[in-house]
Amino acid sequence: MREMTTRRFTNDQIDRLLRPRSVAVVGASDRHGALGATLLNNLVQYEFDGDIYPVNPKRDELLGLKVYHSVNDLPEGVDCAVLAIPRPFVIQTVRDLAERGCGAVVIYSAGFSEAGEEGMRDQIELGEIAGKYGMVIEGPNCLGCTNYIARVPLTFVETNMVSPGPNDRAVGIASQSGALAAVLATALHPRGCFVSTSVSTGNEAASGVEDYVEWLVDDPATHVITLYVESLRRPKAFIAAARRAREAGKPVIMLHPGKSDKAQESAATHTGAMAGDYALMKTKLMREGVIFADTLEELADITEIALRCKSLPGANMAVLGESGALRGLAFDIAEDIGLDLIHLDDDNSPELRAILPDFVPVSNPTDITALGLSEPEIYTKVLTALLEDDRIGSVVASIIQSDPITSRIKFPAIIKVLEDGTFPKPLVFAGVDEGARVPQEYIDGLRAVGIPWFPSTERAYRAIARLADLSKRDLTDRSQEPIVVPGLASESGVIPEYKAKALLGPLGISFPQSQFAATAEEAASVAEALGYPVVMKAQAAALGHKSDAGGVILNLKTRADVAEAFERMYQNVANYDASIALDGVLVEKMGRMGTEMIVGAKSDPEWGPVVLAGFGGVTAEILKDVKLFTPDMGKDQVVAGLLGLKQAALLKGYRGSPELDVDALADLIVQMGRIMDGNPAIREIDLNPVILHPRGEGVVALDALMLVD
Amino acid sequence: MREMTTRRFTNDQIDRLLRPRSVAVVGASDRHGALGATLLNNLVQYEFDGDIYPVNPKRDELLGLKVYHSVNDLPEGVDCAVLAIPRPFVIQTVRDLAERGCGAVVIYSAGFSEAGEEGMRDQIELGEIAGKYGMVIEGPNCLGCTNYIARVPLTFVETNMVSPGPNDRAVGIASQSGALAAVLATALHPRGCFVSTSVSTGNEAASGVEDYVEWLVDDPATHVITLYVESLRRPKAFIAAARRAREAGKPVIMLHPGKSDKAQESAATHTGAMAGDYALMKTKLMREGVIFADTLEELADITEIALRCKSLPGANMAVLGESGALRGLAFDIAEDIGLDLIHLDDDNSPELRAILPDFVPVSNPTDITALGLSEPEIYTKVLTALLEDDRIGSVVASIIQSDPITSRIKFPAIIKVLEDGTFPKPLVFAGVDEGARVPQEYIDGLRAVGIPWFPSTERAYRAIARLADLSKRDLTDRSQEPIVVPGLASESGVIPEYKAKALLGPLGISFPQSQFAATAEEAASVAEALGYPVVMKAQAAALGHKSDAGGVILNLKTRADVAEAFERMYQNVANYDASIALDGVLVEKMGRMGTEMIVGAKSDPEWGPVVLAGFGGVTAEILKDVKLFTPDMGKDQVVAGLLGLKQAALLKGYRGSPELDVDALADLIVQMGRIMDGNPAIREIDLNPVILHPRGEGVVALDALMLVD
Repeated sequence: MREMTTRRFTNDQIDRLLRPRSVAVVGASDRHGALGATLLNNLVQYEFDGDIYPVNPKRDELLGLKVYHSVNDLPEGVDCAVLAIPRPFVIQTVRDLAERGCGAVVIYSAGFSEAGEEGMRDQIELGEIAGKYGMVIEGPNCLGCTNYIARVPLTFVETNMVSPGPNDRAVGIASQSGALAAVLATALHPRGCFVSTSVSTGNEAASGVEDYVEWLVDDPATHVITLYVESLRRPKAFIAAARRAREAGKPVIMLHPGKSDKAQESAATHTGAMAGDYALMKTKLMREGVIFADTLEELADITEIALRCKSLPGANMAVLGESGALRGLAFDIAEDIGLDLIHLDDDNSPELRAILPDFVPVSNPTDITALGLSEPEIYTKVLTALLEDDRIGSVVASIIQSDPITSRIKFPAIIKVLEDGTFPKPLVFAGVDEGARVPQEYIDGLRAVGIPWFPSTERAYRAIARLADLSKRDLTDRSQEPIVVPGLASESGVIPEYKAKALLGPLGISFPQSQFAATAEEAASVAEALGYPVVMKAQAAALGHKSDAGGVILNLKTRADVAEAFERMYQNVANYDASIALDGVLVEKMGRMGTEMIVGAKSDPEWGPVVLAGFGGVTAEILKDVKLFTPDMGKDQVVAGLLGLKQAALLKGYRGSPELDVDALADLIVQMGRIMDGNPAIREIDLNPVILHPRGEGVVALDALMLVD
Repeated sequence: MREMTTRRFTNDQIDRLLRPRSVAVVGASDRHGALGATLLNNLVQYEFDGDIYPVNPKRDELLGLKVYHSVNDLPEGVDCAVLAIPRPFVIQTVRDLAERGCGAVVIYSAGFSEAGEEGMRDQIELGEIAGKYGMVIEGPNCLGCTNYIARVPLTFVETNMVSPGPNDRAVGIASQSGALAAVLATALHPRGCFVSTSVSTGNEAASGVEDYVEWLVDDPATHVITLYVESLRRPKAFIAAARRAREAGKPVIMLHPGKSDKAQESAATHTGAMAGDYALMKTKLMREGVIFADTLEELADITEIALRCKSLPGANMAVLGESGALRGLAFDIAEDIGLDLIHLDDDNSPELRAILPDFVPVSNPTDITALGLSEPEIYTKVLTALLEDDRIGSVVASIIQSDPITSRIKFPAIIKVLEDGTFPKPLVFAGVDEGARVPQEYIDGLRAVGIPWFPSTERAYRAIARLADLSKRDLTDRSQEPIVVPGLASESGVIPEYKAKALLGPLGISFPQSQFAATAEEAASVAEALGYPVVMKAQAAALGHKSDAGGVILNLKTRADVAEAFERMYQNVANYDASIALDGVLVEKMGRMGTEMIVGAKSDPEWGPVVLAGFGGVTAEILKDVKLFTPDMGKDQVVAGLLGLKQAALLKGYRGSPELDVDALADLIVQMGRIMDGNPAIREIDLNPVILHPRGEGVVALDALMLVD
């Protein structure tokens, strides 16, 4: 399938921005607070290991450096120019720099796509210059970037140049908000987390988050990729980048506002990008292994675990705790955030049973009471046993830290666990009493052996839940082959029901027996052949809402009924809209009642196809009780998704009603995905309602509507 | 109504525990780590201002104090004895102490109600001793208590005796978990929050959370009451205490696990108390103004705001922010946690418009960009304007703190707001970049003027949402008068439908027209009088499930139909269960279809009556789409509750369907509450289904079942 590259820039090209050997500071200054002054200071203060070319028409020297009066005086082929100049001069300066072989520019100025039509035009022009010259453009409307490895601070933000050592793991950051790029570094550094490179992408005139992700995947200093995104401008390119990141074993963690309508509106105003379909985006990116955070706090928390632990949490968390009260709270939180606490007891965990004293039952969370104060080795033993247990995907030590004396008893026994052993799952330390006077050396000691320290247990649980969610997705299952719909090429626009059924029926989508009829006589004969009762439905591409037009007549029981209904239906539709000419009617055998579901599919021009399925009817619509599936998902994952519907209890048989044929529904969904995948011309298919019968009795779509390009 | 006191102990009695003038340490010791040693150390170290009587059969002196060899050697009338002795000696020692006029005991030992039958028996005996002698018993299975005002540490936990000054506000803590009592103090002190008195109530053999709340209400040093509860043993007493706290203007904040089934089980194991009905408890306590936290983090966060701010948040939060990205995130969080962000724009907020520069539109959150770095007075002006705005219930400054230089610019301008003004709503500072190097003096400066400092914006939002929820409850509306059901006294047990309808119909509960009939002839005559079609329903107290027994026959259209149905129905019921003798049948006029709702009421022996209402049918049952109402709620609050149902869109008219008669449904619910309130003998009433018609067309209950003591 589509294996063409989606990259706009090579690593070498992006290197000119992120690993430049020469930097021009256009608008260099020594005026306190001026962007060009802070930037120049940053470069000089952190001893940028390359050539610095300040540009200022009115100065000859700044900080001992020769100043150029114009970008046209610069040497050819400067790697990167940072523009700390007023908005009106930006376009011409970029053009001049491109002409002189400059490889990358950073544009701080705002006033482009976020500021109306003229700004948008100028931004498009920037993109065109970039395309023509192969020039990387960071921004406009950005805060710049910092490579903490090569020690290049191309930003006007006061920068704390904390560089990781050769053996440190580090996170690469790309953010469509400059503020959040800065905030993330500020929040991660005090936690002892290193940043490799941080890029504020701004309005993304030429290079966007997806381009930087590609570069970060190949950056040996980057181990985790953390992103703040409001709108992905090139979904296919991002998907390709995320896929490469996964292959490289680098977790991609994303914060993307837009769950609420108001957040989507806000994003549109903020960056000038169109708000996308949040649910669609999330479905597609979950499928590429992206881990989503809901809040900024979570973004940093998840990043720390991904960075500090040697592997990501699997499903089934186990907790060592010290109070029964915290057990109840853990159950409540776990249910709330969808975190699986594995069930452990005396019978199923003999190793733990052997370690714990008699008065402590094996459980999860295990409540070791205050025992650890007198026998701290219990921490080491219990945590090691939990880490060695194959059923468990992550382990939390939820600890009452109290004071320096208590810390001195507990921390070393916990640190010892990873000093002595290596395990393929994380151990996370979560304090219970945030603010307790814990000597910093103990927190550092945890971190040194790869144990993240969380100030509160709630936060550790939330971050682990997000990460464990990834382990539940089978990203390797991409077995589904596309199906080409025979005869589709000759169709376009709205395909009426009878044609849609004719196209889809042979591909395994189950419909009631039916036949098209163009006359009353034909309709009657068809009905005779099908057997009564039948339903009659008016057929025309222009007739979107058959029912509203009196174009559906149910429960016809005799030949005479059918003939009469035919005439009446033509009259109804004529009364409804005289301009609609019916192709004829569909006569269909009425089937049994069942549970009303809906299955739909659409192909987004950017994101590609997706299948939606869930409960039908008004209640379900109000509750939005549907799930999205990608076409490459296998049946098991579709079944798992369906069992996650809010009303899933109905599928499993509720209060004496029979279990429903979820397998057949999943087959239908998988088939719809394959059809969407095989026929890019199909914009939409709606099967509504789909009647779901008891297990073994299948699923039948009563209506079908297709929209084809 | 029931104004009898629910108090078991007077303040003077509890003073003997919490403000003792003499303390006996039974099991005093100098063995490192022994409970009796740490306790004695605590008393001596913090210079307990009263008499200390160590008791130890084998010692004559400890820490320079005279040691008594037995509790029987103690002087008469010691205020409080703390028992740091093994479990087997507890009961006799308590009895001996009671005999000598000791006013209170603290029992650390575990092994009572949480440990099985024998423990439960002993615990009941403790309660009996307490009752006989008017003795307060803290515990058993507790960590003791600390009065930080009187400086009395009756606990074996290392205590940090941080005492509030005379003008400091302080929180009183009562916790059924000793660990959490300790954890709360550890977490609050570093935030500069003072604790007045903290009590770990343990198994509550005699005095429980409700008793300590009563005392805290009257304690002049306590301004906020924070509780951890797993099971309230005396609901009525707690309600009375909570009501007094509200009258005294002391917010009550509670963390109570039990939302999940597993948490309820865990609580039962942990304290030996029966798990209660969490939803019922919460409904009743919300009505008394209790503020619920969901997590330990929230509990401390809410407590800090309640303690530090001069008034609690109202509805409609406004935010000053510095990044457009944080706007979108705020909208997502607000929707997620049910927080109202007030809509502000250029048109509706001329004061803000006048303050902000042209390029910053008025909005909420207001994004002042990086402007504050060059013009810090903007913080003072905007925050003051928001605080002065009557529409707004709370204000958050969501700030990028960065580093000491940035802090120096921003914090003083924010502190100035409350230095210069007093406002009847909170101002909360919420950092965006947790971990930023903020000099402690700035955080202290905020706190000194009454501005809580939160490390993350998410947490500030969550805590404010919980508090603002209180402002939305109309706790003053208790206008509903109980209604006595005439004729109820002669009924008991299960009341069959026809009698229930006869009892409730005259009180304004609307049922279809119907009449009881004991013979086929009578049934036919009734049907003739009512008009067809009718439904016939078998009537007998013993017939719980009429439909299952063939005891409901619908859509009878002629006299002959009715007569035949009568015979058939008797036959059906006889076939179903020959032991059931029918009283006769109810013949009822069939009404129009409508939306199926349920309304039920039950009277809990501990909590009193509550009315449940919501959507009917299987889907609603799966979704638990119901709300609970207390009988004293007025119609407006009931309507507000109904509009909070998950499927509320159906009530308001969805997709062309008409708006439904929510008013009539609310009237029905209010009436049910009044009936429950007026007739304590009614255990349960079930109206299922209740058919809800379009606005103005009312509501009709099709079935009625009552259970009477």
